[in-house]
Amino acid sequence: MVDVKRIKPTIPGGFRDYLPQDMIPRQQMFDTIRAIYERFGFSPLDTPAVERTEVLGGSTSKMRIYQVRLPTSNDDDEQQELSLHFDLTVPLARVVAKYGNELPRPFRRYQCAKVWRGERPQAGRYREFVQFDADVVGSDGVMGDAEIVWLMHDTMRALGIDRFTIRINNRKVLDGLAKCVGIEDISGEKGKELFRVLDKLEKIGWDGVATELRREPDSDVDVWALKLGDEAIAKIKRFIELDGTSREILAKLPEVLGDDSVGLQGISELEEMCTYLEAANLLPGTWKIDLSIARGLDYYTGPVFETSLNDLPGIGSVFSGGRYDDLVSRFGDMSLPATGASIGVDRLFTALEQLKLIKTQSTVTQVLITDFSPDLRTEYFKIAAALRNVGLKAEIYQGTKRAFKAQMAYAASLEIPILVILGANEKEKGVAAVKNMRTRTQSEVPIPDLATFIQSQLQA
Amino acid sequence: MVDVKRIKPTIPGGFRDYLPQDMIPRQQMFDTIRAIYERFGFSPLDTPAVERTEVLGGSTSKMRIYQVRLPTSNDDDEQQELSLHFDLTVPLARVVAKYGNELPRPFRRYQCAKVWRGERPQAGRYREFVQFDADVVGSDGVMGDAEIVWLMHDTMRALGIDRFTIRINNRKVLDGLAKCVGIEDISGEKGKELFRVLDKLEKIGWDGVATELRREPDSDVDVWALKLGDEAIAKIKRFIELDGTSREILAKLPEVLGDDSVGLQGISELEEMCTYLEAANLLPGTWKIDLSIARGLDYYTGPVFETSLNDLPGIGSVFSGGRYDDLVSRFGDMSLPATGASIGVDRLFTALEQLKLIKTQSTVTQVLITDFSPDLRTEYFKIAAALRNVGLKAEIYQGTKRAFKAQMAYAASLEIPILVILGANEKEKGVAAVKNMRTRTQSEVPIPDLATFIQSQLQA
Repeated sequence: MVDVKRIKPTIPGGFRDYLPQDMIPRQQMFDTIRAIYERFGFSPLDTPAVERTEVLGGSTSKMRIYQVRLPTSNDDDEQQELSLHFDLTVPLARVVAKYGNELPRPFRRYQCAKVWRGERPQAGRYREFVQFDADVVGSDGVMGDAEIVWLMHDTMRALGIDRFTIRINNRKVLDGLAKCVGIEDISGEKGKELFRVLDKLEKIGWDGVATELRREPDSDVDVWALKLGDEAIAKIKRFIELDGTSREILAKLPEVLGDDSVGLQGISELEEMCTYLEAANLLPGTWKIDLSIARGLDYYTGPVFETSLNDLPGIGSVFSGGRYDDLVSRFGDMSLPATGASIGVDRLFTALEQLKLIKTQSTVTQVLITDFSPDLRTEYFKIAAALRNVGLKAEIYQGTKRAFKAQMAYAASLEIPILVILGANEKEKGVAAVKNMRTRTQSEVPIPDLATFIQSQLQA
Repeated sequence: MVDVKRIKPTIPGGFRDYLPQDMIPRQQMFDTIRAIYERFGFSPLDTPAVERTEVLGGSTSKMRIYQVRLPTSNDDDEQQELSLHFDLTVPLARVVAKYGNELPRPFRRYQCAKVWRGERPQAGRYREFVQFDADVVGSDGVMGDAEIVWLMHDTMRALGIDRFTIRINNRKVLDGLAKCVGIEDISGEKGKELFRVLDKLEKIGWDGVATELRREPDSDVDVWALKLGDEAIAKIKRFIELDGTSREILAKLPEVLGDDSVGLQGISELEEMCTYLEAANLLPGTWKIDLSIARGLDYYTGPVFETSLNDLPGIGSVFSGGRYDDLVSRFGDMSLPATGASIGVDRLFTALEQLKLIKTQSTVTQVLITDFSPDLRTEYFKIAAALRNVGLKAEIYQGTKRAFKAQMAYAASLEIPILVILGANEKEKGVAAVKNMRTRTQSEVPIPDLATFIQSQLQA
């Protein structure tokens, strides 16, 4: 028997609590994101946190996922290996494969859920975090991709953020680049290595990248060494250094890529994307074609998107997505094109905290009805009913310290804006005292008028 | 290497997906519950799904909880035994113990989260389900308990349910009963056995209960046998058969319980509770004192509440709560009174499905902008922008089947109410066709007036 008094109330590393002062603004973020996603015609889906490990397994060799099990298992069903989902895309694929034609095509769904990854905890990175995904399954056109970028833009702006940049690239353009420097198998080791090296540009600079592009194999099993020559490297340099507006970059790109058909298709898709985004009239400067985006390219098959905060570039992308046309292939012969994006709510929340853009709030309560006199408690219930009936957020003071000073201190520490005080004198006159904690004014208000009066005080 | 094509897209037994047609009304339930909880001045809290097993362990000997672990662990932190939380009360206790004076007193918090239990799956019972809890920590008065019952009432009504009954009892009344039939140690085996037997009343009837009350020990280790005599059993029968209104039951109760101080305090608390609930003016017939409620009594310390659906009594309580004044005692010497309630959203959802009170809805989309002519897609983007800017939920058709018939079939199957159709002819005239799928009418509307026109169509 453990001494129960010695259980420490700690949480595991990499996990965090959201106390009300943080959870209130975080909940507002969820609401805002949901409102925008729904405005784009995405409908909610929910899937279990627990999936069969096999379902999660395929694409995730590098991901450390949490295994789940019951301590004792007799029935067959419990013999299955189970794990916590690590993203919401695999569950989406599982749903699409499972329900097939029961689902509409296209299937526009959003999902907001916690996901779990056994990554090393660090600032802004948790082992449990919320993803908020929107995807269109069964859509093969650039129009669908453009709507996703637009959704990302509108979501960021609705969250009160204007200083962000959505960078857009296309897997096909990079495939075209790989081909034109002599890498034929773009899904093979060399193709992946090229994208991996390009992705390090910001970190190691051009000279570092060039060294890696030129690198000779260091052993017989080193199949990754790219061994590129001067001409290929010069071409890649020209590719990376293309600059100007999105349209200018696209106009110059064929000079570098030549007439490779995959590369040309990538260019054409990016041009179509620009056309739609121009029509949608997004905030200038919030999106651009950026050929250096090479993340997740073994997964995406067409356009890819990343979103960085201009004032906090170091935290990386807070909102990423792209087209992935092999969504359900793991579950059968069915092949379905899909495009979508995922916002990492907790990482974004942490970033906004750093930027001092999170307004903490200790309580949702707008009105505290003080427990001034125990004899008048039925009056407090009647007043609470009247206030709640018009939608005011009201609580009756329920603390164990009943001194009026303690009640005032409670209201002050939570920054509750309005206090209602009713003692025997007021009761006799049919009024209550309303104390506005913001304006530091106090008024006597007839009890039947309380709700209306308080609403006007809160709007002022 | 597993043949990836053979992975079956199944979910584990006891888990379920919520496709949009169910998730849309379920999400509305969450929103409704949240609105009511906030109106009562409860603020949101979020805690990790994963807790240290030791934190969850103490009070839960009978609960089968899901263990969680990473496949390989080197760092110390990962040596901890972890599990998924099985309710939201233990995490609340952990939070209160961990943050101590950082939290306000009283601390009114709600939490909406999935919980996991390894129970045998059955109709309406899942291994993963959402609880939506509201609790006041640091509140010792009946006023706090009464506000919880009121909250339960308002929540049920806001969910569109009027035919429900909140049954209210008090642990102290049952303790008084135990004492007056000679059971002194009400927290001991005999006390628990008495409550367990009484709780079976509905299932086994009075004769069955009487037999169990009279039972002699069947072995030396059978410390539970109550061995009650005729007089004690007659007293329990009178207790159980007390009827009338809540006030009448309470008026007759002292005759049965005599002058035991604990019993009298229980009666007094229930009377105070009635006074507050009468003041709050709840819907008649939705609450009553019911002395047969004896569930969870080794946990609750004062008032207890259960909510049943009048039309589906068999599913048991969908919304339960009570006072538990030993909340944080497992984590230290601190003792804090608390009261609260928890709604089992998924069980309630399943019940409402059975009662045909769930209105399924296949999509949130209000307007489908058809992809009539690829040349006009930038127009579709501009129209979508105009509609979304006024808050309309609009999507541009993104399916792979672009025949107009397929687009109409998509809108019809999802019951999207409004279609916007723009071809070259309309474009030339500066109009779009708006098809109202409900009224089966079609109108030509100037493009700048689309948003306003569609809003009026949706309100009609």
